[in-house]
Amino acid sequence: MNDFSSHAADLPAPTRFGWIADGIAFGADYNPEQWPEELWPEDIALMQLAGVTSVSLGIFSWGLLETADGVWDWGWLDRIMDLLHAGGIGVNLATPTAAPPIWLLRAHPEIATVDADGHRTAQGGRLAWSPSSAVFRRYALRVVRAVAERYGSHPALRMWHVSNEIGNENGRCYSEETGAAFRVWLAERFGDVSRLNAAWGTAFWGHHYTSFDQVEPPRGARTGHNPGLLLDFERFTSDALIAHYRAERDELRRITPGIPITTNFMVMNTPGATDHEVWAREVDIVANDHYTIGADPFRHSELAFSADRVRGLVDGRPWMLMEHSTAAVNWQGVNRAKSAGEMARDSLAHVARGSDGILFFQWRASSAGAEQYHSAMLPHAGADSTIFRDVERLGATLKALAPVRGTRVEKARVALLFDHDMVAALRSGRKPSDLVDPMDMPIAVHRALTLRGVAVDVLPSSADLDGYAVVIVPTLYLVDDALPARLERLAHDGAHVLVTYLSGIVDPENRVRTGGYPGAFRDLLGIRVDEFFPLMPGESVTLDTGHSASVWLENVDAHDAEVRARATSGERAGVPVFTRRTIGRGTASYLATRPDPEGLDAVLAEVLAAAGVVPVVASEPGLDVVRRVGEGRSYLFLINHTDAERTASASGRDLLTGERHDGTVRVASGAVVVVEEER
Amino acid sequence: MNDFSSHAADLPAPTRFGWIADGIAFGADYNPEQWPEELWPEDIALMQLAGVTSVSLGIFSWGLLETADGVWDWGWLDRIMDLLHAGGIGVNLATPTAAPPIWLLRAHPEIATVDADGHRTAQGGRLAWSPSSAVFRRYALRVVRAVAERYGSHPALRMWHVSNEIGNENGRCYSEETGAAFRVWLAERFGDVSRLNAAWGTAFWGHHYTSFDQVEPPRGARTGHNPGLLLDFERFTSDALIAHYRAERDELRRITPGIPITTNFMVMNTPGATDHEVWAREVDIVANDHYTIGADPFRHSELAFSADRVRGLVDGRPWMLMEHSTAAVNWQGVNRAKSAGEMARDSLAHVARGSDGILFFQWRASSAGAEQYHSAMLPHAGADSTIFRDVERLGATLKALAPVRGTRVEKARVALLFDHDMVAALRSGRKPSDLVDPMDMPIAVHRALTLRGVAVDVLPSSADLDGYAVVIVPTLYLVDDALPARLERLAHDGAHVLVTYLSGIVDPENRVRTGGYPGAFRDLLGIRVDEFFPLMPGESVTLDTGHSASVWLENVDAHDAEVRARATSGERAGVPVFTRRTIGRGTASYLATRPDPEGLDAVLAEVLAAAGVVPVVASEPGLDVVRRVGEGRSYLFLINHTDAERTASASGRDLLTGERHDGTVRVASGAVVVVEEER
Amino acid sequence: MNDFSSHAADLPAPTRFGWIADGIAFGADYNPEQWPEELWPEDIALMQLAGVTSVSLGIFSWGLLETADGVWDWGWLDRIMDLLHAGGIGVNLATPTAAPPIWLLRAHPEIATVDADGHRTAQGGRLAWSPSSAVFRRYALRVVRAVAERYGSHPALRMWHVSNEIGNENGRCYSEETGAAFRVWLAERFGDVSRLNAAWGTAFWGHHYTSFDQVEPPRGARTGHNPGLLLDFERFTSDALIAHYRAERDELRRITPGIPITTNFMVMNTPGATDHEVWAREVDIVANDHYTIGADPFRHSELAFSADRVRGLVDGRPWMLMEHSTAAVNWQGVNRAKSAGEMARDSLAHVARGSDGILFFQWRASSAGAEQYHSAMLPHAGADSTIFRDVERLGATLKALAPVRGTRVEKARVALLFDHDMVAALRSGRKPSDLVDPMDMPIAVHRALTLRGVAVDVLPSSADLDGYAVVIVPTLYLVDDALPARLERLAHDGAHVLVTYLSGIVDPENRVRTGGYPGAFRDLLGIRVDEFFPLMPGESVTLDTGHSASVWLENVDAHDAEVRARATSGERAGVPVFTRRTIGRGTASYLATRPDPEGLDAVLAEVLAAAGVVPVVASEPGLDVVRRVGEGRSYLFLINHTDAERTASASGRDLLTGERHDGTVRVASGAVVVVEEER
Repeated sequence: MNDFSSHAADLPAPTRFGWIADGIAFGADYNPEQWPEELWPEDIALMQLAGVTSVSLGIFSWGLLETADGVWDWGWLDRIMDLLHAGGIGVNLATPTAAPPIWLLRAHPEIATVDADGHRTAQGGRLAWSPSSAVFRRYALRVVRAVAERYGSHPALRMWHVSNEIGNENGRCYSEETGAAFRVWLAERFGDVSRLNAAWGTAFWGHHYTSFDQVEPPRGARTGHNPGLLLDFERFTSDALIAHYRAERDELRRITPGIPITTNFMVMNTPGATDHEVWAREVDIVANDHYTIGADPFRHSELAFSADRVRGLVDGRPWMLMEHSTAAVNWQGVNRAKSAGEMARDSLAHVARGSDGILFFQWRASSAGAEQYHSAMLPHAGADSTIFRDVERLGATLKALAPVRGTRVEKARVALLFDHDMVAALRSGRKPSDLVDPMDMPIAVHRALTLRGVAVDVLPSSADLDGYAVVIVPTLYLVDDALPARLERLAHDGAHVLVTYLSGIVDPENRVRTGGYPGAFRDLLGIRVDEFFPLMPGESVTLDTGHSASVWLENVDAHDAEVRARATSGERAGVPVFTRRTIGRGTASYLATRPDPEGLDAVLAEVLAAAGVVPVVASEPGLDVVRRVGEGRSYLFLINHTDAERTASASGRDLLTGERHDGTVRVASGAVVVVEEER
Repeated sequence: MNDFSSHAADLPAPTRFGWIADGIAFGADYNPEQWPEELWPEDIALMQLAGVTSVSLGIFSWGLLETADGVWDWGWLDRIMDLLHAGGIGVNLATPTAAPPIWLLRAHPEIATVDADGHRTAQGGRLAWSPSSAVFRRYALRVVRAVAERYGSHPALRMWHVSNEIGNENGRCYSEETGAAFRVWLAERFGDVSRLNAAWGTAFWGHHYTSFDQVEPPRGARTGHNPGLLLDFERFTSDALIAHYRAERDELRRITPGIPITTNFMVMNTPGATDHEVWAREVDIVANDHYTIGADPFRHSELAFSADRVRGLVDGRPWMLMEHSTAAVNWQGVNRAKSAGEMARDSLAHVARGSDGILFFQWRASSAGAEQYHSAMLPHAGADSTIFRDVERLGATLKALAPVRGTRVEKARVALLFDHDMVAALRSGRKPSDLVDPMDMPIAVHRALTLRGVAVDVLPSSADLDGYAVVIVPTLYLVDDALPARLERLAHDGAHVLVTYLSGIVDPENRVRTGGYPGAFRDLLGIRVDEFFPLMPGESVTLDTGHSASVWLENVDAHDAEVRARATSGERAGVPVFTRRTIGRGTASYLATRPDPEGLDAVLAEVLAAAGVVPVVASEPGLDVVRRVGEGRSYLFLINHTDAERTASASGRDLLTGERHDGTVRVASGAVVVVEEER
Repeated sequence: MNDFSSHAADLPAPTRFGWIADGIAFGADYNPEQWPEELWPEDIALMQLAGVTSVSLGIFSWGLLETADGVWDWGWLDRIMDLLHAGGIGVNLATPTAAPPIWLLRAHPEIATVDADGHRTAQGGRLAWSPSSAVFRRYALRVVRAVAERYGSHPALRMWHVSNEIGNENGRCYSEETGAAFRVWLAERFGDVSRLNAAWGTAFWGHHYTSFDQVEPPRGARTGHNPGLLLDFERFTSDALIAHYRAERDELRRITPGIPITTNFMVMNTPGATDHEVWAREVDIVANDHYTIGADPFRHSELAFSADRVRGLVDGRPWMLMEHSTAAVNWQGVNRAKSAGEMARDSLAHVARGSDGILFFQWRASSAGAEQYHSAMLPHAGADSTIFRDVERLGATLKALAPVRGTRVEKARVALLFDHDMVAALRSGRKPSDLVDPMDMPIAVHRALTLRGVAVDVLPSSADLDGYAVVIVPTLYLVDDALPARLERLAHDGAHVLVTYLSGIVDPENRVRTGGYPGAFRDLLGIRVDEFFPLMPGESVTLDTGHSASVWLENVDAHDAEVRARATSGERAGVPVFTRRTIGRGTASYLATRPDPEGLDAVLAEVLAAAGVVPVVASEPGLDVVRRVGEGRSYLFLINHTDAERTASASGRDLLTGERHDGTVRVASGAVVVVEEER
C-alpha cells in the first residue's frame, strides 16, 4: 500500500502512515454482532465478490465487549478480526464509545446529556453522553485502552475509527456539570469577567456578571438569549466534543503510534456542534459522513459542495468518505430510493473531489433496531438484488481507479470562503430575517460555478488565499478584523472579490459592527448601508438586468463604487443590488440581494470574465468537471447529472473502459467518465 | 326483555343475561350531578318523550360519592336511581374510576401518569391514573365494591359500565412504577433476557441487556427507539390497561353475577393504547364510542368501517354504540355541526351493522366544564330545538326497529384483515415513508366495496376465514408465520386473496423478514421485491390501466405471477403494480401501489368478478346496503349517503313507514329505509 | 410646562402634576450603560439636535446599581442624570425591576416563574420573576426605595416608569408559591368552596373540591382544563401582576408624592396577562407600547384600534406612547423595515388619537444583546442615516404640534365595546371554532368605520354609554347580566345597537347561558339560536346582499326581528345572517356571520344611516380623520394611508406648514396634515 503523510496537531512532526487499502478504499460499517456467527463466512465471501477492502468494525460494540463493569468478552471480536484478515479485508477498528453500555447508563445516569429545559436524555438511543462528564471520560478511556492493547498489533488493523459521529445526538448539553465546564472555559477565554461583560454586552437586559461562577448555559428562558453567550456556548460545545476526541486519540497514539487515527465528521450537519476547521487538524485522515436529502432536486450539488468543503479542510492530508448510503435512508419523512446510477455518481463525485475511500453505512441491512430500513451494501433481499449488483459494479470501478489514489484535486482559481463560526453566529440570536439561511448562498454560488464547469475551492476564511483569481465571500456574517485588509491586498494585486449581503456584519464576539453596514467590508467595497430591507416570504423584485431577486435588499450608498444593477420594482425600486469598486489591478464587488439562479449566474459570469477564469476544460453546462493531479499525471472526472448526453474536451485513456478519448469525450446521461489525460 | 349469551373470558361457560332494554337501547350518558336536583324530573319527562330506554350514570361521580378517603355520600345517586326506575329508564351504572377525586390525586400524586420526558400529569383532566399504580388500583377497587354492593340489586340497574374510555388520556405512562411493571411483563414474555436481546436485535446501537432490570420504557432519548422495544411497550400498555378493566370486572362479577358487564371501547382511536381483539373477549357486551371527523367528507365510510370493525370483534355477542354525538363535538379545530339527517343516518348505520343500542354523549349539554360545547340530546337551547326534535324522531325510529334487536349481520363473502398489532407495529419505529398510514388502505378498500353494495367482514387475521370467497390483506405490515400458509390453503380451495404493499414485512417481534419483500407473502404471491420506491409527497404516476397512483411503488419481480398492471410514468416506469398468481382453484393478487379511488375500484372489481361476489342486493352505487338476519327473518338496511335518489331491489314491509316495497325500493337522498324482507 | 390631573386609585382626590415635557413629549428608552461613557455627550448632543424632550432611563440597570446584595453603585447613574439635566432633557426614571440581577437569580432561583409542565425559567432573559414571589417582592421594593430616595428630587426627574412591560414574559406562573397565592385569591373571591364548585361546574369530570387547598393552577393535564378555572387563573394572574405594580407605586408615592407615576402597558398583546381596564385606574398617566406587525397590510388600522383602545381606558387622564419603533423590530420572522413616511404616520396617528408623547425603544441601537437588530432613533449607521434624518423631522413636527398637547379627542358618536375579560374567556377552554379570533371583529369593525372617516370610541362594556348614537358589540363573548338591559334602554331612547355572533354567550363565570343563544342578548335582539354552524377553514357562503361570508353561521330564529339578509349557498342556505329589531326610537341589529369587508361595510352603513352618524368631516375614503378638541380650539388630523391624494373639507391653519386651508384640504399620498380649525 502507498503511504501518506499526517501532520495532525498531536504529532511532533509530519509522519508517514500506510494508506488503509491498495488503491481506493471500499467498504462499509460492519456490525457482525447483529447476526449469527454462522453468517459471517457468507459476509466475507460476498465482500470479496464486491471488492470490499475495508470495514469499520466495532462501532456499537461496547456493551458486548465489556458486559459488566470491568468484565470483558473479546471472543467474538477476536474471531471476526481473524476472519476478516484471512479474507484480505482491512479493518478500521472503532473505539466503541458512541454507545455506552446499558449497565453504565444505569449505574451512572449523570453521564447523559441534559436539554435546555432540564430533561436528561434517556437510554435507548446513541451518543447519550455529555463530553463534559468526568465519569464518562474515565470509562470511555478505559475501553479505548483495552481495545488498543488487544488489537493494536492485529494484522487486520489499518486505522483507528474514534467513536462515531461525535456531536450528532450529543451536540448540546445543559447539565450542571456542563455548566461548570463552560465556566472554566469562559474563565480561560476571558481571564476577567469584566472582559466577558464587555464582549457580550451584558448591560443589555441587565445581565451583568460579577463572577464567572454566575454564568449558566443558555437554558430555557422564555426569551432569546444574548448572542454572545449563544455563540460562545457553541464554541465551548465544539471544544468539549473535540477534547473528547483528543482524549481518545491520545490513548491510541500512545499505545499504537504506527496506526493512523480518524473519526467521522458530518460537515453538512448544520448547525453542527463541532468546528471542523479546528477538528480537522487533529486527525491523520479526514473522514466524512454524507447523506443526500431525497427531496432536494439539487442534492448532487449539495454533495459537491460537501466534498469541496471537506477538501478545503485537509490541508494536504488524504480524506475519505466514511459513510454514505447505497440507497434510501430511514430518517427522512419519505425515504426516497436512489435513482438508477445515483449511488455510483454520488460515490465517484466524492472521489473526483479527492476522496480516497468510499464506504457505506452499512454492510448488511439490519433486520431489527432503530435503522432497520436504512439501506446497505447487502440489502434485506440479499445478494440477488439490484443494489448488490450495483455495489459489485462500483467495486470494480473503484478498483480501476486505483491509480487516482493519492493524487490531489487541482487547485482552483476560485476560492469560496466558508466558516463554521459564520454559521454558528448567524444561528445565534434573532436576526433581521429568518429567510437568510447561512447555507443558501455558499451552496448556490458553488452550484452556479460547477454548472459552468468552473472549479472552486471551499476554504475557511483563515486560509492562505494567494494565487486565487476570484475570492467569493457569501453571507460571511462574522469575520475577524484582518480579513478585509487581506482581501483588499489580494484585489490590489489583481484578484476579483465578490462579497454578498450579510457579510462582515458582526465581530468575533457576535456584536454588530457599527457605523454602517457591512461593517467590516465598507471600505473594501466602497459602499455604506444604513438600513436593511428584508423582503417578506414570497416577495420578490425585478432587477434592471431582467432577473428577479428575493430575500434581501438594503439601502446601499455606493459612494466609492460603480452601481452595476438596481432593483426596479417594489417600494425599494432604485436601490443598488450589485456594485463594483476597482482596486489596483482587481475589483471588489458587492451583491446586496439574493438573485434568481440566472441572475446569480450572470453576476458570477461577470466576475469570472473580469478575472479570466475559465472552466477546467471546455464542456457543456451541467457536466461536473474535476481534475485530480499527481506527479506527472492527471485524471479528469466528468460526471453527467443531466438527462442528456454532454461533451467535454479531453484526450487520454478512459480509466473505466480502457478506450481512448481523442479531443472530445461524450458522457452519456447519468454516466461518469474518468480520463487519464495526455497533457 | 330478550336475553343474550356472553362467553366473556372470565365466565366458566356461556351465560345468559337480559338485554338492557326492550328492543334497541336508546339513550345517553347522564350526568345529573351537574344540575340542580330540581331539574331532574324535567330530565326524566323529556327522556320519556324522546323514548330513552337507557342511561349511563355516574361516570364521573367518584368525588361526589366518596367525598373524602372512605367517606361516602350516596344520597343523590340513590335518588336519581329511584327516579329513573320510576320513569322506566334502565341504568348502565358506571364504576366512577375514570376520574379519581381531587383529594386522592393530592394525597397520592404518584397515581398519575408520567410522560416520556418525566412530566407527571397534573390534576384537572380525567383518566390521569396509571394502570400500573398499585395505590390507584387499591382505591379504585374499593369504590367499585362500594358501588356494586349498594346498587347491585337496584331495579334500575341493567348493566355495569366499567370506568370510561380506558386508555384514552392514560394511554402511555413512563413512570418508574410503570417501568417496574414493564420489566415484570418482559420477564414473563421472554423468560430469559437473551431471548429479549435476540427478539429486539439489541446489538444495534449496542443496547445489549444483561438483566431485565436494565430495561426502561422508551423515554425521551433524542433518537428513535428500537422498534421491538416500542412494540412490546405498546403491548405491555394494552395489557396493563386491560388488566385494570379485568380487576374491576372481577369485583363486579363476584358481587353481582347476574348483571352483564361492559366498558366503552374506542376502536377508531388510532394509535389506540389497547388491543381490542384481546379486550373484546373480556366483556359481556361489546360497546364502542364513535365520533366522526367533521372535516372528513367520507366520514360515513369511516363510520361504516368502524362498525364493521366492532362487529368483527364480537364473535357472536351483541354490541352497541355507547357514545356518539347528536351534532358538533368540542375537540376538533372547527367543530362542524351535523347536516340535516346526519345524526339519524349515523345512528342507523351502526344499527345496520349490528349495534343493538344507540347512545350519546350526553343527555343534557353542559353549561360548564371542559366539554361545555359538546352537543347532547338536549342542547343548550333546550327541548324547543331542532336537535331535540330530531332526537325524538330517532327514538321513534329505533322503537320501530325493535324487531331487529338480537339479529345478526349476514356473513359477508369478503373478509378484510385488520389487526391492532399491525397498526402498532407500523407506528413503532422509523419506516420507509411517513405517507403510509395504517388506516388508509383498510378504510379505502372498505369504502370501495361498500360503494358497490358489497358487504365486507373486518376481521382479525387470526379469525376463521373458511367460507370467504375473497380475503383482502391491506398493508398488514406485521403477520405471524402461520397466516401465509392459511391463505395459500384458502386460495387453493377457491378463495381469491388480495394483498397490498407493506404487508407481511415484519415478524411478530417487529423485525424485517429478510430475503426479499414481502417476506411472509413472497411464495403465496409468486413475487419478490428487492427495493421499495416510496413516492414523494405530491408525487404520482400513471398506470397502464389509465389510472394514477401515489405513495408507493416497489421493484416487483413477478417470477411466478402474471403482471396485470404496470406504472407508465416517472423514473420507475415499467415496474409491476398489480400481479396475480393462480393457485389451485383460486388466486393470490398483489397490489404494489396506492391507486386513486377509481384504480382501486378496478382492482377490486377484478377480484370480485373472479370470485363471483355480487352486492347484497342489486342497487345503485353509493347506497349503503346491509342485511341483518334472525331466525326466519331478515332486515335490509338501505342508507343513502348521496345527494340524489337511489334504488335497490328488495321486497317486503318498510319497518319505518309500514308500507310495502315490491321489487324496487326508492331511497331518497339522505334517507334510510329498512325493509323486513320476504325471502 | 402645563399640568394635568390624575385620579389614580391610590390618590385620595384628583391631583395635579406637571406634564413631563413642554408640548408633546419626544424621546426613547435610553440605555447609556450599554456604551462607553465617552459616547454620552454625543448622545445628548444628538438628542438636542433631534428635539428629544424625554428619555426613559435605568430600565435594565438593577444589576449595575446593586452589584451584590445590598451593595450599591450609583455613580454612573448620577452622572448621566446630571448630563441629561444639563442638556435639558427630562427623565422618566425606571424602577429597574424588569430584570433582576444575576446574583439575585442565583441566590434565589425560586423567584423565577415556572411553566405549566414544571420547568423553571432560566436566567438569560428578562421578566423572569413571578409576581407571587415574596422574596422577589422584598428585593424589588428595596431597590425601588433606594432609587426613589436617591433621585426623587433630582431636577431631571419628570415621571416614574415602574418596571417594564409587566406581564410580558412573566405572564403566567405555575409554581407552588403561585398556587398558594391563587388559593388565597380564590378563597377571597368565593368565600366558600361550594360557591367555587358551583361557579366552575366542577361536577364535570368529577373535579369536586372540598377545600380551597385542593385547587391548583391549570398545569399540564393531557386534556383541556375547566373553562372557569382557566378564566379565574387569568384574572388571578392579572391581579397578581397589577398588585406588584401597586406595591412599587405605593413606595414611590410615599417617598415622592409630587412625581407622576406610570408603567408601560401593551394593550394589543393578546392574550395579554393583565386587565388594562383595571390597571388603567392605578396610574397617573396611561402609557402604552405598540409595535406593528410587518406582515399585516392593515397594520395602520390595527394601530388606530390600539390607540382608540388606550384612549378608551384613560377616562380623562393624558396618555402617551411609551414605546414603538422607528423601523424594523427583531422578533418577527422577517423584520420588515418601515416604508417611507411610515414612522411619521404611525407616530402622528397616535397623537391624533390623544397621545401626548411619542417615545421609542430605544435611543441608540444596541450592538450586542438579544435585541441587537431592533431599530432605534440612532441606528447602527449613526446620525448620517435616513432613519436619523426622519427622526429629526419628526421632532420638528411634534414641536409644531405643541398646542395640541392637553387637548382631548372629540367624543365619537359610535361606541365599540371591548373587554379584556371577553378575550380571556374566549381563549379559556375549547370553543366551537378555532377560527373565531376575539380580535378579529373588533378590529374589522373599527377599520370599516375609520375607512369611512367615522370616529369611534373603543370602550369597556362597563363604560357610560349615554350619548352614543351607535353601540357596537362585536363577539363580546362574556357579558355580565346588566349589559343587555342597559343596551335595551339606550335603544329605546334612540340608540342603534349592533351585536355580532358569539356575543353574550357566557356569564362572568365562563358558563354558557342556556335556553338558546345568544343567551344574554336573545330578548334585546328578538332572536333565538338553537345551534351554531361554524364554517370550515376556507369555506364561505354567499349572502342575498351579494356579499360573501365565512367563519360562522347559526340557526337564527328571528321571532321578534326583521330578517335583513340571509345566506344563499351551502347546506345552511336560508338562515338569517342579519336581523333588526325596532325598540322604541332605536334598533338592535344582529350580525350572525363574518361578512367580507364590503359586506361588513354595508351592514355598518345601514346602522350608521339609521342613526344619522356621519364622518368627522366630509372626506374621501381611506383618509384617517380625527379631531382633538381643547378649550375654544380644535385640531383636525388627516392621515393619508392610501397611495393617492385624498381630500377633506376643513378650513384653518396648517400646524405643520403654517399655510391656510380654505374649505378643502388636499393630503398627498402617505402624508399627514394637521389643521387648526376655524369653527
